[in-house]
Amino acid sequence: MTPLPAPEVVTSRHRLRVRFCETDLMGIVHHANYLVYCEAARVEWLLLRGVSYESWTRHGLHLPVVDATLRYKLPARFEDELEVVTTVVELSRVAVRFRYRVMRKATLLCEAETRLACVGDDLRLKRIPAEVERIFTSGELASAAPRAAGA
Amino acid sequence: MTPLPAPEVVTSRHRLRVRFCETDLMGIVHHANYLVYCEAARVEWLLLRGVSYESWTRHGLHLPVVDATLRYKLPARFEDELEVVTTVVELSRVAVRFRYRVMRKATLLCEAETRLACVGDDLRLKRIPAEVERIFTSGELASAAPRAAGA
Amino acid sequence: MTPLPAPEVVTSRHRLRVRFCETDLMGIVHHANYLVYCEAARVEWLLLRGVSYESWTRHGLHLPVVDATLRYKLPARFEDELEVVTTVVELSRVAVRFRYRVMRKATLLCEAETRLACVGDDLRLKRIPAEVERIFTSGELASAAPRAAGA
Amino acid sequence: MTPLPAPEVVTSRHRLRVRFCETDLMGIVHHANYLVYCEAARVEWLLLRGVSYESWTRHGLHLPVVDATLRYKLPARFEDELEVVTTVVELSRVAVRFRYRVMRKATLLCEAETRLACVGDDLRLKRIPAEVERIFTSGELASAAPRAAGA
Repeated sequence: MTPLPAPEVVTSRHRLRVRFCETDLMGIVHHANYLVYCEAARVEWLLLRGVSYESWTRHGLHLPVVDATLRYKLPARFEDELEVVTTVVELSRVAVRFRYRVMRKATLLCEAETRLACVGDDLRLKRIPAEVERIFTSGELASAAPRAAGA
Repeated sequence: MTPLPAPEVVTSRHRLRVRFCETDLMGIVHHANYLVYCEAARVEWLLLRGVSYESWTRHGLHLPVVDATLRYKLPARFEDELEVVTTVVELSRVAVRFRYRVMRKATLLCEAETRLACVGDDLRLKRIPAEVERIFTSGELASAAPRAAGA
Repeated sequence: MTPLPAPEVVTSRHRLRVRFCETDLMGIVHHANYLVYCEAARVEWLLLRGVSYESWTRHGLHLPVVDATLRYKLPARFEDELEVVTTVVELSRVAVRFRYRVMRKATLLCEAETRLACVGDDLRLKRIPAEVERIFTSGELASAAPRAAGA
Repeated sequence: MTPLPAPEVVTSRHRLRVRFCETDLMGIVHHANYLVYCEAARVEWLLLRGVSYESWTRHGLHLPVVDATLRYKLPARFEDELEVVTTVVELSRVAVRFRYRVMRKATLLCEAETRLACVGDDLRLKRIPAEVERIFTSGELASAAPRAAGA
């Protein structure tokens, strides 16, 4: 395992508003959408470190989810403003594990973890490149402007 | 425009059951899902003529939707068994138009049309190949077994 | 038809970033997601006028989409920052029509229109209440702060 | 814990075909969709025992997912015919746990588990009614006809 810096360094926040189509007939956010929220949060985690995941995929570096765990505590609802607090909690030569806390203000709605493996365009496992490893152990760029768009 | 055979020849039926996650807090199927149902119906329309759209995409032939029109008449609900009746209604050198009627038994829930353009991997318009044109003007294969899976 | 103010008054902008899960194997945003973007833009259009659509639904006022038209011009891609420019273009006693222009900077990617009918919890048509009509013909509140979250 | 019959009794199979919109730009099924497949499988599990989950929800009995675990082994692809093998593996006074194996013929693509809590319309925990408990420990009805639709 690669040693990680203090959790607050490798933590970022992603804000989003619950969309109408993300609810179901119970009137709450459908549980599959939390994986979508976590993914969006992960993408922003990278953007805040100057990295476009899109450019990685274009260069043949992919990080598919290989396992996921979710604990649903309280339901989110339409129009809720949520914040996903995302932390790198484990890093090996071929995989990285993120932990997520989906919050509505101070209330924890869902806790999740996903492990992502590093693969090429052929979907075969490959070693995480050194520069990617560096990203996963780094903090937000000072210059990362607060984004107006909610990505 | 390429002449088309009688509508019943270029018509096929796709059956599906409404999934829980396809509903929204109004308790009905979210309107965006009808485009998904039409797409699944279109894929089955091809399968019933012996064609895997997947193999087309693998060979660099894509048919992205370039316009869509939907008229929602009555709501579909969770667990409804629906049938999408799909007909080719127009065929040009570069595009094909499908019409869909989403039915619950004899009740029409939604009418839709989509026009699909023929493009390559570069997403540039290209002429519909002759063998593809032949498919769009043909009826179901006699040998197309009734599918156990609902796709 | 209810007379409408100048288009710029009844126009608002919604920013969003394309999520990974919104792409398909063509590498572009799946066409059904544009209905989702338009819906999110509509919800924000209301928020910018001080209205929570969520509170309307809680009070038995719903605005289901009864028809939709979409013209796809150019594909959006993963991580694109998009802006949906949304305008009320028609208002009757029971329905309202919105027009949307999905932009990537100055490039128009998709044009759409949806007509929404006013219904109660029983999904039966009802007259648009006067205070709701007033909202549909009004401009953004001066006090509507630019939102940090991407709703 | 309520004792369970032999696993094969409380096991059922759900077949589905991967939809185009369920893929992402990696060309494989997006990982959030497996929760959707499991849910559809669970609904069919009930249908095969003569129960409509829709009627339960209409009568104020809901079974929201309170935790989920997924292990992704191999990717599913567009048009794949999948089978979800679903088993009740744990039953308490207020919750039920399902295990899923998403298969493409003999190949295991994904293993998952979800725990569902019994709640009312107010989303508060309540004891699983005796007749519902009976369902969770029963086998398929002899009369459950093979379904034409793929739900």
